Amino acid sequence: MIKPPRDYHDMDDPQARPRYTGIASFFRAPVADALADTDIGVIGVPFDLGVTNRSGTRHGPRAVREQSTLLRRINGATGIRPFAAARVRDLGDCWIERPFELTGAQAEITGFYRDVVAAGIVPLSVGGDHSITLPILRAVAAGGPVGLVHIDAHGDTGGDYMGSRFHHGAPFSRAAEEGLIDPARAIQIGLRGTTNDPDLWGFSQRAGMRVMMMDEVQDRGWRHAADEARRIAAGGPVYLSFDIDSLDPSQAPGTGTPEAGGLTMIEALRLLRALRGLDFVGADLVEVAPPFDVGTLTAFNGASILFELLCLLAEAWTARGATP
Amino acid sequence: MIKPPRDYHDMDDPQARPRYTGIASFFRAPVADALADTDIGVIGVPFDLGVTNRSGTRHGPRAVREQSTLLRRINGATGIRPFAAARVRDLGDCWIERPFELTGAQAEITGFYRDVVAAGIVPLSVGGDHSITLPILRAVAAGGPVGLVHIDAHGDTGGDYMGSRFHHGAPFSRAAEEGLIDPARAIQIGLRGTTNDPDLWGFSQRAGMRVMMMDEVQDRGWRHAADEARRIAAGGPVYLSFDIDSLDPSQAPGTGTPEAGGLTMIEALRLLRALRGLDFVGADLVEVAPPFDVGTLTAFNGASILFELLCLLAEAWTARGATP
Amino acid sequence: MIKPPRDYHDMDDPQARPRYTGIASFFRAPVADALADTDIGVIGVPFDLGVTNRSGTRHGPRAVREQSTLLRRINGATGIRPFAAARVRDLGDCWIERPFELTGAQAEITGFYRDVVAAGIVPLSVGGDHSITLPILRAVAAGGPVGLVHIDAHGDTGGDYMGSRFHHGAPFSRAAEEGLIDPARAIQIGLRGTTNDPDLWGFSQRAGMRVMMMDEVQDRGWRHAADEARRIAAGGPVYLSFDIDSLDPSQAPGTGTPEAGGLTMIEALRLLRALRGLDFVGADLVEVAPPFDVGTLTAFNGASILFELLCLLAEAWTARGATP
Amino acid sequence: MIKPPRDYHDMDDPQARPRYTGIASFFRAPVADALADTDIGVIGVPFDLGVTNRSGTRHGPRAVREQSTLLRRINGATGIRPFAAARVRDLGDCWIERPFELTGAQAEITGFYRDVVAAGIVPLSVGGDHSITLPILRAVAAGGPVGLVHIDAHGDTGGDYMGSRFHHGAPFSRAAEEGLIDPARAIQIGLRGTTNDPDLWGFSQRAGMRVMMMDEVQDRGWRHAADEARRIAAGGPVYLSFDIDSLDPSQAPGTGTPEAGGLTMIEALRLLRALRGLDFVGADLVEVAPPFDVGTLTAFNGASILFELLCLLAEAWTARGATP
Amino acid sequence: MIKPPRDYHDMDDPQARPRYTGIASFFRAPVADALADTDIGVIGVPFDLGVTNRSGTRHGPRAVREQSTLLRRINGATGIRPFAAARVRDLGDCWIERPFELTGAQAEITGFYRDVVAAGIVPLSVGGDHSITLPILRAVAAGGPVGLVHIDAHGDTGGDYMGSRFHHGAPFSRAAEEGLIDPARAIQIGLRGTTNDPDLWGFSQRAGMRVMMMDEVQDRGWRHAADEARRIAAGGPVYLSFDIDSLDPSQAPGTGTPEAGGLTMIEALRLLRALRGLDFVGADLVEVAPPFDVGTLTAFNGASILFELLCLLAEAWTARGATP
Amino acid sequence: MIKPPRDYHDMDDPQARPRYTGIASFFRAPVADALADTDIGVIGVPFDLGVTNRSGTRHGPRAVREQSTLLRRINGATGIRPFAAARVRDLGDCWIERPFELTGAQAEITGFYRDVVAAGIVPLSVGGDHSITLPILRAVAAGGPVGLVHIDAHGDTGGDYMGSRFHHGAPFSRAAEEGLIDPARAIQIGLRGTTNDPDLWGFSQRAGMRVMMMDEVQDRGWRHAADEARRIAAGGPVYLSFDIDSLDPSQAPGTGTPEAGGLTMIEALRLLRALRGLDFVGADLVEVAPPFDVGTLTAFNGASILFELLCLLAEAWTARGATP
Repeated sequence: MIKPPRDYHDMDDPQARPRYTGIASFFRAPVADALADTDIGVIGVPFDLGVTNRSGTRHGPRAVREQSTLLRRINGATGIRPFAAARVRDLGDCWIERPFELTGAQAEITGFYRDVVAAGIVPLSVGGDHSITLPILRAVAAGGPVGLVHIDAHGDTGGDYMGSRFHHGAPFSRAAEEGLIDPARAIQIGLRGTTNDPDLWGFSQRAGMRVMMMDEVQDRGWRHAADEARRIAAGGPVYLSFDIDSLDPSQAPGTGTPEAGGLTMIEALRLLRALRGLDFVGADLVEVAPPFDVGTLTAFNGASILFELLCLLAEAWTARGATP
Repeated sequence: MIKPPRDYHDMDDPQARPRYTGIASFFRAPVADALADTDIGVIGVPFDLGVTNRSGTRHGPRAVREQSTLLRRINGATGIRPFAAARVRDLGDCWIERPFELTGAQAEITGFYRDVVAAGIVPLSVGGDHSITLPILRAVAAGGPVGLVHIDAHGDTGGDYMGSRFHHGAPFSRAAEEGLIDPARAIQIGLRGTTNDPDLWGFSQRAGMRVMMMDEVQDRGWRHAADEARRIAAGGPVYLSFDIDSLDPSQAPGTGTPEAGGLTMIEALRLLRALRGLDFVGADLVEVAPPFDVGTLTAFNGASILFELLCLLAEAWTARGATP
Repeated sequence: MIKPPRDYHDMDDPQARPRYTGIASFFRAPVADALADTDIGVIGVPFDLGVTNRSGTRHGPRAVREQSTLLRRINGATGIRPFAAARVRDLGDCWIERPFELTGAQAEITGFYRDVVAAGIVPLSVGGDHSITLPILRAVAAGGPVGLVHIDAHGDTGGDYMGSRFHHGAPFSRAAEEGLIDPARAIQIGLRGTTNDPDLWGFSQRAGMRVMMMDEVQDRGWRHAADEARRIAAGGPVYLSFDIDSLDPSQAPGTGTPEAGGLTMIEALRLLRALRGLDFVGADLVEVAPPFDVGTLTAFNGASILFELLCLLAEAWTARGATP
Repeated sequence: MIKPPRDYHDMDDPQARPRYTGIASFFRAPVADALADTDIGVIGVPFDLGVTNRSGTRHGPRAVREQSTLLRRINGATGIRPFAAARVRDLGDCWIERPFELTGAQAEITGFYRDVVAAGIVPLSVGGDHSITLPILRAVAAGGPVGLVHIDAHGDTGGDYMGSRFHHGAPFSRAAEEGLIDPARAIQIGLRGTTNDPDLWGFSQRAGMRVMMMDEVQDRGWRHAADEARRIAAGGPVYLSFDIDSLDPSQAPGTGTPEAGGLTMIEALRLLRALRGLDFVGADLVEVAPPFDVGTLTAFNGASILFELLCLLAEAWTARGATP
Repeated sequence: MIKPPRDYHDMDDPQARPRYTGIASFFRAPVADALADTDIGVIGVPFDLGVTNRSGTRHGPRAVREQSTLLRRINGATGIRPFAAARVRDLGDCWIERPFELTGAQAEITGFYRDVVAAGIVPLSVGGDHSITLPILRAVAAGGPVGLVHIDAHGDTGGDYMGSRFHHGAPFSRAAEEGLIDPARAIQIGLRGTTNDPDLWGFSQRAGMRVMMMDEVQDRGWRHAADEARRIAAGGPVYLSFDIDSLDPSQAPGTGTPEAGGLTMIEALRLLRALRGLDFVGADLVEVAPPFDVGTLTAFNGASILFELLCLLAEAWTARGATP
Repeated sequence: MIKPPRDYHDMDDPQARPRYTGIASFFRAPVADALADTDIGVIGVPFDLGVTNRSGTRHGPRAVREQSTLLRRINGATGIRPFAAARVRDLGDCWIERPFELTGAQAEITGFYRDVVAAGIVPLSVGGDHSITLPILRAVAAGGPVGLVHIDAHGDTGGDYMGSRFHHGAPFSRAAEEGLIDPARAIQIGLRGTTNDPDLWGFSQRAGMRVMMMDEVQDRGWRHAADEARRIAAGGPVYLSFDIDSLDPSQAPGTGTPEAGGLTMIEALRLLRALRGLDFVGADLVEVAPPFDVGTLTAFNGASILFELLCLLAEAWTARGATP
């Protein structure tokens, strides 16, 4: 049962204090040094060496932490109270000792997330570039393939590029090949843009994923996209990966690979809220690149997305019968 | 009767000159040192000590003045010519001698506006934070409660916060309690966002205001919002308060309390234009915070909103049988 | 027949390399010193002395070149492969020796474009302010009036201003008077904003152009706008002029004369793609003013528009039976 | 005799109020619509069509006005109280009806300044580009050549460029040729940078001006520069022209033609203060280009320089026996 | 005895990890929830309601925390190792429940610091505006007046302003009146700028403080300033207050009351390092206003100053015979 | 013999045209596709995977190219005319096919430079992070160790870090170990900042390099630094490596590892000019990180430094008896 929130005037709760005060953890939630006493762990993965274009997402976790302090405890649209429903902790950043070496770095990430998952913690991650989703999935989907809701301007199911199999344009082709995701329960939403490869979205399609181009989202609306996502991904545990470049560049200029003509924030927020009911077991927000932001718009919108992901995870966690 | 505008080529009119020339008054209208010869007075209220989060709106009036010089004399959508219809003057800034003391500062603002109202001038104000609307209403609604069209991401009908009854999150609960607004003729449009108080919009609802969440605006469109506003607020004098954070942060990043997923400018402009016919007796634009702006986007959009407010006031003023 | 693109992995093609590498030509296409071996020439016109407000578009070509390096070779929405369909070259900047003298400068521009047209090259231009379209049309429409699709917040069919007949607010009135465009095959899309002249759009209407205000675009949608454009402009060669200020200021803050409430990028992109089939013989993108940009949003969106213009020109060029 | 300033607590004086309040005139001095009751007139000249590189100084007067509101009434270093010593007024902007035509625009500027000088007003101008100094000198030096203290990265004594004799790189060669300045009483301080013309400073040297390169300033110090300036320019009325690009780009990034390695602000301020005693009859600050500024640093430093120029003019005005 | 630092390669120490990783505490030092196990406490005081001009320093602590992560463990110039010498902890932000009420807020600050001092912790504070120094001194100097090294563009010994005795322009007049500082052991360094009060620095001088204007610093050098400071302040406990606006605006644009012509960073750093040997018992860095910063320059320079303050405190703490 | 420059009015020379025109190559010099007809080759190396902190220097070459267009043909301080003295070409960017793999990437860089050196071309490189200097030296110093003038805030003679021997903090320790530089003819100028390694500069000192800390530069002046550099490095071919972070952060905010209190531009420019006479065989400018720049200050100052490096190379090339 969802517990009542602390009182609005309870200034002992850092989340009720003026938003410019205190050290900037995710949502001003408690920082945990260990994996105990945590139901949902928000984790930074400041890694961007999987990028083939503009980098800078290594600074994403800190910028999203800072902007997330502008958010409060209750989702005004759905009423969900994630901090009352579950013990939400900022677990700090995933530590990578060998960042210069891509394959090894991925192994380090997987190791960290295996510990998280083993502790019964639902991981909510903030990248970093999209290459981090593959090693996260290796931990989250260790028990079998998961469904996938993937919101992005790019399919990220590419082949090798410049000598590497593991870059930010290929996590999902690798994940499908490794059996970490079930293509029949996978949907990609918001794809668009120019390409070099005439078969750029071919892997996804041949693998059996549902590919929803941005034009379809615009033509039929966010409710249609959410309906399709719920229809496709239902029936088992689901992972949600939100690439900030799915948003229109006017909403998220601070990203490495912008594509004109994307989602507005109101579309994205409502789409996410309409995914309630799926059994989410993990989620990530990736590709926020603060050095390319204007003001803090991208980080703020990213934090707002992250809050919705948190709400989805909290509600799914509660639905699985868990209590904090 | 609306008089013809000055000729397009009449370079004696500062408003016809290149927009980068001259001192930046609101819309390059004449600056008035006294209250004579003025029908509509545009007034800056550079006050932001009612803020519980990010401040900076004290710089709002100057930034909006600067950007308002980009606008011209005729509303291209409605044909309204506010400067021909009424004597519009920049009355400078409301002067507050005791800014450090909130209650006293509010009394000073009320005093200033009582003089304005007594001179028969319709006030169009530029904040400053939203706490200024309460002392303005104490002057504008001295003769009895007015209707209210309130466009905002927040209801601003909160209770005390951190020891103060008069902050930027509470002008309308205070105004209702003081009998300055008639809740039955009040509508709030665009509310949304995260909250700390599970009953954040309860005061408005219990008081009898029409509360239209942002989702309803998006689902049913700006025409629906305007229809409701006209239906609710009709039947007497109306005050219009436009908080810039009603806009989507991509349209108005320069504000203290952004909420993701708001109005676009085209929705806001058309909503405002569709309010024609209401008997507006005053209006304000608040919460433009230039230190958080990117470029001058927020100030420019704010100035564009301000022009629509001016047109509504000018048309209502003419409809009441007044002539310049 | 459209040739297959070079292989995705073909790193000998600069367009396939990481986007931050190499000198920034338009789309990283080859730079041509002469007019040989070129089918479509992308040309910068860094001229902004026709401006009556904020200048800075002289820096537009370089900023658009830089951002265009983020784009790739294939249009993901339509499948068009402009670089395979035609020999696309960056022809550098149109050289103007007497920029201080407006009439003479225009003659220089016309001279340059006469050479381009004489060489059989389809010109795709990047301004510069909108005054450049007139001298370009003098070359492109030397053989007779062309149809016009003009997307803009302003009609740009004004009269004299401050002593000059040839400024950025009047290219199309001059073009109609000189018989360069056929008003019956001309459409203007997206007009809006405040005005000083109560008859601002009168010239266009009296001349017989189809004037579609922004409100009509919003009410009836981008498909309607495109349908009208195809209906009006069909039946002969067509020129397309895209003023970046047709976009909403949140999408294109970096321009000299912003008007609130314009097109979103997704509307603009889809509108342009729906113009396929018209016989385009030239196009331009104007009024990108980098000194007023925030980050690189305007230049990036401008480059994305430019790519669509290129695709339209390439397809029309192919349809006329030409092969590279 | 210098009158005492108004009391520090006298809030009736706009200059004593919080600096973010009120309309932004120069130093928050009174705005004068006519030329009466004024001893020193601060005048904006928003003209930048004399520029061969990056423009934008048309926005200089407004930006300097805004930043000048941060300054107060007394020079802390010298004790000069310019507003007590003389009636200082913001005379608004010099109005130019034919900006597109360089020679005519210059005649308009001269006409304006002749009226100012005829009214006995000492002009302190804010550009605009450096081409404005020539037409100003035509008014100020109508009675005979004046001495010149010219602080700049460039000598601005060039020849024709791109078809024009009157551009921002040549005001002082023209002024010398026209007998407006006395080369024997003229000094140029701070020159440096790359050149295209191997004889760039030859005109100055042959004309008999004292040319002090930046290296000499650095080697021998600001006192030496001031000593030389006082030695050279003494013996008659003197005009002072300060180009903001004399400052190091880290102090003044917002200018069209930056040159690395210039004056620091403390050097510039002390150099100017050490010019006391010269008989200044006019001064200008030019080349502040707000679109290229970072934050408001250049405009703020420009306003601080402008205050020193005002103090020099006020003291010289008093020394000539005038009283407000 | 100073202990050796952890090994350079010891990645268990957050301070040795890549600087973009981890939650941003001051210098990435441990965050302490209680006052135990701490020798030097770095404390944020996000309070800016004592400001009469531009606000925004409430965001100072977070911005300085973020930039302080760029610094490492050893002072390269002096060899001091503050984190080895003392247990340095980030104590979070001083909590103020009644920010709207200036006198009460100051009492809250004093209460917090009394606890800190009572725990034997040396406080190093990050503002916030300069009004915070008074309530801090009330705690630090509870046992008797302390010496003062005050580096600032302003003397901050003003009288009442706009109805308040306790604003950011008056902490040191109040502190002297209350016997918290010993004027004979107080020095103010770097004062300059325009004033409204002809006797602005009179209080300091009459009280017996050593007032060193910026010109004296420039004429005689930072060593002279440091020599004077050591001479004046010696003989007892000393408090050091560093206002970021003592720096030149090109070094610290992000502050509320900039004054042209200040200290460079190299002067400030060396001046501070030359104060070694004084018995510092507390220090603060104030007036960093991130909303006015350009990039992160002011916050970075502020963090670099903060590190020097930390080194001075650590060395003085060790000199008093304390060991971690 | 140095040839006269082209005429100032010769508009056929792109370098004489308005600076905002044309495609942005280095200094608007001709772009060479092959290695023929080139004496000095300016080369971009957009590589930043050797960075342990903030990345972004991959965008350095383009940003420096853009800003270098503001420079002209003649060094105003020394009279050197590099483009007349030698055939200077923009050779584009060094192409790296395997950027994800550090050791291999270095081999690719060395391969490219071996071709350049074999063609008799003097390389002037623009990074990229400092790790690029090692593979460049492997080509330039293939014939034996060279002298080194290294201007930097950091010694860059570190050991392994996070599993890699080849990062941007270690090129010179590796170069010394490999016999590419002669430590007895090597000098490092401007070192400073905080460290983690108490022996950070120990390698340099033990290897026999002359280490000149920033304090020594400030105490004794740029002439002293230049005298030492000429004394140390004389007697053979010399390589010059300029890290932009040697500059003060107020001069070069756009870099990954800023250190407070560095060189001013005027010090850097004069220091470099005073190195004339050394036999420079190559040079580089590294660590310009545009995503962290404010405006274009760092890139502009970088371009100004690059011009001085070019002049030194051109003069040395001429001194070796070469003619274009």
